[in-house]
Amino acid sequence: MKKVGIGILGLGTVGGGAYQILTQNHQNILRKENLDLRVIKVLEKAPDIAIKKGVPKDKIAASIDEITSNPDIDIVVEVIGGIEPAKSFIEKCLTSGKHVVTANKELISKHWSELEQIAQKHNKGLYFEASCLGGVPIIRSIIEGMQANNIIELAGIFNGTTNYILTKMSEEDMSYADALAEAQKLGYAEADPTSDVEGYDAMYKLNILSTLAFRKQIPLESIYREGITQITKTDIQSGKELGYTIKLLAIARMYNNSLEVRVHPTFVPDKHPLANVRDSFNAAYLVGNYVGEIMLYGRGAGDLPTGSAIVSDIIYCAHQDNPRYLKFDSKLNDIKLVTDFKSKYYMVLNCADKSGVLAQTAAVLGNNQVSIDSVIQKGKHKEFARVVFLTHKTSELSMKKAIKELKELKVVDSIESVIRVLD
Amino acid sequence: MKKVGIGILGLGTVGGGAYQILTQNHQNILRKENLDLRVIKVLEKAPDIAIKKGVPKDKIAASIDEITSNPDIDIVVEVIGGIEPAKSFIEKCLTSGKHVVTANKELISKHWSELEQIAQKHNKGLYFEASCLGGVPIIRSIIEGMQANNIIELAGIFNGTTNYILTKMSEEDMSYADALAEAQKLGYAEADPTSDVEGYDAMYKLNILSTLAFRKQIPLESIYREGITQITKTDIQSGKELGYTIKLLAIARMYNNSLEVRVHPTFVPDKHPLANVRDSFNAAYLVGNYVGEIMLYGRGAGDLPTGSAIVSDIIYCAHQDNPRYLKFDSKLNDIKLVTDFKSKYYMVLNCADKSGVLAQTAAVLGNNQVSIDSVIQKGKHKEFARVVFLTHKTSELSMKKAIKELKELKVVDSIESVIRVLD
Repeated sequence: MKKVGIGILGLGTVGGGAYQILTQNHQNILRKENLDLRVIKVLEKAPDIAIKKGVPKDKIAASIDEITSNPDIDIVVEVIGGIEPAKSFIEKCLTSGKHVVTANKELISKHWSELEQIAQKHNKGLYFEASCLGGVPIIRSIIEGMQANNIIELAGIFNGTTNYILTKMSEEDMSYADALAEAQKLGYAEADPTSDVEGYDAMYKLNILSTLAFRKQIPLESIYREGITQITKTDIQSGKELGYTIKLLAIARMYNNSLEVRVHPTFVPDKHPLANVRDSFNAAYLVGNYVGEIMLYGRGAGDLPTGSAIVSDIIYCAHQDNPRYLKFDSKLNDIKLVTDFKSKYYMVLNCADKSGVLAQTAAVLGNNQVSIDSVIQKGKHKEFARVVFLTHKTSELSMKKAIKELKELKVVDSIESVIRVLD
Repeated sequence: MKKVGIGILGLGTVGGGAYQILTQNHQNILRKENLDLRVIKVLEKAPDIAIKKGVPKDKIAASIDEITSNPDIDIVVEVIGGIEPAKSFIEKCLTSGKHVVTANKELISKHWSELEQIAQKHNKGLYFEASCLGGVPIIRSIIEGMQANNIIELAGIFNGTTNYILTKMSEEDMSYADALAEAQKLGYAEADPTSDVEGYDAMYKLNILSTLAFRKQIPLESIYREGITQITKTDIQSGKELGYTIKLLAIARMYNNSLEVRVHPTFVPDKHPLANVRDSFNAAYLVGNYVGEIMLYGRGAGDLPTGSAIVSDIIYCAHQDNPRYLKFDSKLNDIKLVTDFKSKYYMVLNCADKSGVLAQTAAVLGNNQVSIDSVIQKGKHKEFARVVFLTHKTSELSMKKAIKELKELKVVDSIESVIRVLD
């Protein structure tokens, strides 16, 4: 039996969940893992919150030094969130000889490489399973389950809030505003929902997971990001008729010598496993060159699901004689990160309702090497004809150029929607 | 960089897949994992098969002793299958100081405990990720990703052949016989399909996975098993109308102080994540007391997917300073394995088409504490009325008793189907 002392920085939602599991499941973990996990100190600037969650008064620390200087603490859990003071605290813990487990996606996305170097220098571990997809063991599956493979594709629903909103819009015919309001009422979305609905949260997770999957540091700036605020009930209805479900997808793909990394609303074919991921659930879909398709599905947020991932990291760390560090694949040093990615597109134009419109718009697409898969003229929006184009796989830049030229056509009143389609 | 010598026992489908990955991906694994994995010897009684798969002549061993006595071999991969000689070979390897990686579900299901003890005695590792769900990292997810949880439920589609057959019957209106013939043509089913269609293959995997998930040795004999050979197109059509998809499910559930473990055809509600697992794909659905629902999905068979799991185990093993052994949860020593499990039922009776039938059949159910959720009398089969009962959750023994009594009723001509419904 191995004794492991734990310090927790922050006792908010996730910290509270981890604390609850560690105390409530102490005996079970002792029996099954042969580990005696004990919370030694909790750093929480609002001690009444910690006391309310059952932390004895003498375990509440007033400063980070009380954690870093305590010789009984082996592993520190950082669940403060944000960049500072979380970053300085983690650095202090690592340099003081503590392993670190964190749920902080923004910090790991922006500063992982720097923190990992500090961890290596001090021969300590830095683990962050809880930073992506809550309780779903996605990082462990990539690092410990798919190692034999070269991963070709990673695609996923990494944000539960937007998935809840899109599910409500799709299944209950709600408007975006109503679905967002309901998500806020249920505590799924924050008062300021920007990070979720504009795709920042999904982007951080995609950054972390694609770095692990491809074994290449992906700069945050190289990720294309687009949120769901422009999606309408009409888009969703049109998608359904064409056999698509709309999802905010995070996608990273390797082909030839290029890697594309992007987050945007996407029409997913109904038979794709990601199409059936509903409500606030998350999922990651991976393709390995040997294993083929893999999908992991589960709760991407919440105190106990995320707490489960934190305690899993604690146990994983405690069993290791030496910390594990990620090696990058030096062969990928010269791989290009492309912003001109390739996709199929769905586009709706509101056009003058007269002859020649189709010829003119199709000509613009053709001149820009955008090849049309199908076109449907259906219904009217005010006095205009709605023309729906589905394209074959085409380049993002070609599409952008075509859109610019289409806007300049006299017969085109407006471009109602442009949504990428998963191929 | 760590040098790791590998011996492979058997170069059939899976052995060939593992050999291909180890040779083809040697440099990538070296760069990313810092491991130099080299196949030293291959034991294959048909050397021409090995040569055809690219194994140099001087690497082909003629006897197990050439493997066990070779000091360059650190890890032996057993992919012969079946009980003997696989079991003796594994024992020899462990006692000779080799770690063992195996894909052998029948052997691990029947003799894991014995082999694990030998492994422990010699301080060697015994790994078997490839024995369940091919390339899906299900064992790693249970052992290294859900450790914080007490697992409450495990349910899954563990056999690709039967899932392919049921998908064809469901989506293309094929008969069981035609779908089986197609599966055989495609190489998904063997000439003698018993192990797949009668549920033995799924039962072995359920035995292994439930032992790991609940941390309690589950005797094979305690698992209820029923195959898919009795399923008809009519059952599938009726299920669809009621919002169910039929699957051969492997289920293990813990409640109060009981554990039930069973494999049988099951109506799965269309919105359940397992309902959308189509074709020859496999999936495991788990519920942890903290993490909630988790599902893993992917290819459950095939040379490269299963080879991917074997090479994953090799890398996992090679990174460990000390082998990992599973601890059972001593608290579960007294847990009862119940055969009288609880389920909802779908039952079709062919009854005389006259008044009083419903009253008589409902009385039998009521007398046996089988509570009716709904009843539909629909269509005729020959001169009989088809009466479809859906029950609330009821005990298997009550249901069996009710069925026996129903058969004795004069108004009941036959019981067309009894299918359990997932709740």
